[in-house]
Amino acid sequence: MNLLLLSDQDFIAPDRVEVTGRRFMHMKKVIKAKVGTQLSCGLVNGNMGKGQVVSLEKDRVFIQVKLDQIPPSPLPLTVVLALPRPKMLKRILQSMTSLGVKHIYLINSRRVEKSFWSSDLLSKEKLDRHLHLGLEQAKDTQMPRVSLKRYFTPFVKEELLELGKGKICLLAHPRASQPCPFGVNKETILVIGPEGGFIDLEVETLAESGFEPFSMGPRILRVETATTALISRLFT
Amino acid sequence: MNLLLLSDQDFIAPDRVEVTGRRFMHMKKVIKAKVGTQLSCGLVNGNMGKGQVVSLEKDRVFIQVKLDQIPPSPLPLTVVLALPRPKMLKRILQSMTSLGVKHIYLINSRRVEKSFWSSDLLSKEKLDRHLHLGLEQAKDTQMPRVSLKRYFTPFVKEELLELGKGKICLLAHPRASQPCPFGVNKETILVIGPEGGFIDLEVETLAESGFEPFSMGPRILRVETATTALISRLFT
Repeated sequence: MNLLLLSDQDFIAPDRVEVTGRRFMHMKKVIKAKVGTQLSCGLVNGNMGKGQVVSLEKDRVFIQVKLDQIPPSPLPLTVVLALPRPKMLKRILQSMTSLGVKHIYLINSRRVEKSFWSSDLLSKEKLDRHLHLGLEQAKDTQMPRVSLKRYFTPFVKEELLELGKGKICLLAHPRASQPCPFGVNKETILVIGPEGGFIDLEVETLAESGFEPFSMGPRILRVETATTALISRLFT
Repeated sequence: MNLLLLSDQDFIAPDRVEVTGRRFMHMKKVIKAKVGTQLSCGLVNGNMGKGQVVSLEKDRVFIQVKLDQIPPSPLPLTVVLALPRPKMLKRILQSMTSLGVKHIYLINSRRVEKSFWSSDLLSKEKLDRHLHLGLEQAKDTQMPRVSLKRYFTPFVKEELLELGKGKICLLAHPRASQPCPFGVNKETILVIGPEGGFIDLEVETLAESGFEPFSMGPRILRVETATTALISRLFT
């Protein structure tokens, strides 16, 4: 936790917050906060700044805060990802958030196991938890928006087609011949398939909506590694 | 497993192998191999190519192989990494291997917890297991070499100084002002610190050995995310 992420409910005065639960435990056990300890703070979807511990109780901490800094700029990137297995999704949500992605679509594909869609990780509460962890890691406050799309074809043919207008539309695909672009630095939509890749019909549907397939080279990466590697290449 | 990784001991004839254990179970349960099933194969530190299942028994499979392709080129990169916590190290070893890194130094630093050095993950057998998983994922056969360096100062002042001669020497450091270079595409040594970063004295020692600090920007990444993001940026 490089930043203590606050919500409106934590404020007990305009410049004072009361923190309990997981964040309190982290401050107590990992940061070993005492009266006077200074730390970075930020309000979800608001400013960031500094905080100073003013008092500690056995289950809560009171912090005086001054939030006068704007958070880092988001990446001009939307990631559309075939729903990965829940264990991997947790890490991907955290890493994408820490890299500055603010728009994430989790979509279906033939090679997505049906059971993944009934994971309780997809509840708003659980998703938010992992997005919070990513923000706390990266020192950011702007929450990514996660959308779930269970129907591949209507999503790609209608919503994604519309979304891609005027943007760079890329499809990471292990069997493509084009190499991965570097430093595009423009509004981009990046589509990433499941382990094993999209099936041919899905690649065709994506191509019809304007998504050009490219490959990361001869090595096949796990979705988790590929996601970070791709995002890192696209923006300087 | 995108490639069945073979060792010399698997060969029962110049063009035939007998596979047991974990790889057999994977072929049976995940690939659902039958007589006639074709798959990519490769010999550790040797060629890659195709295999075809010729017979199956209850605990082993016999495969006819033709290994006539050279593996993908390694990255011209040596990664020097402050020893991460074991759980994360497993994933980092696999992801670095899948990205094509062939030289890995795991080093000590003030912020590396002492207990990490007694993890049984650091045994040759366990390290090899995770490197194998990375090769199987990426379709590669060239094993990375992992070296353990428990003494930071002599390693950096002597061995790393020598190693860096004629190469690009980079130090990823959250508090540096220089931005991360893109697409260097030359022999490079990349040093990555522990969670929390190297302490100032360590940064100075690395600078004296020619390692220039640069930052990935205002966001602080977990070591796992940073490692993949950095490797991905350095080579086109």
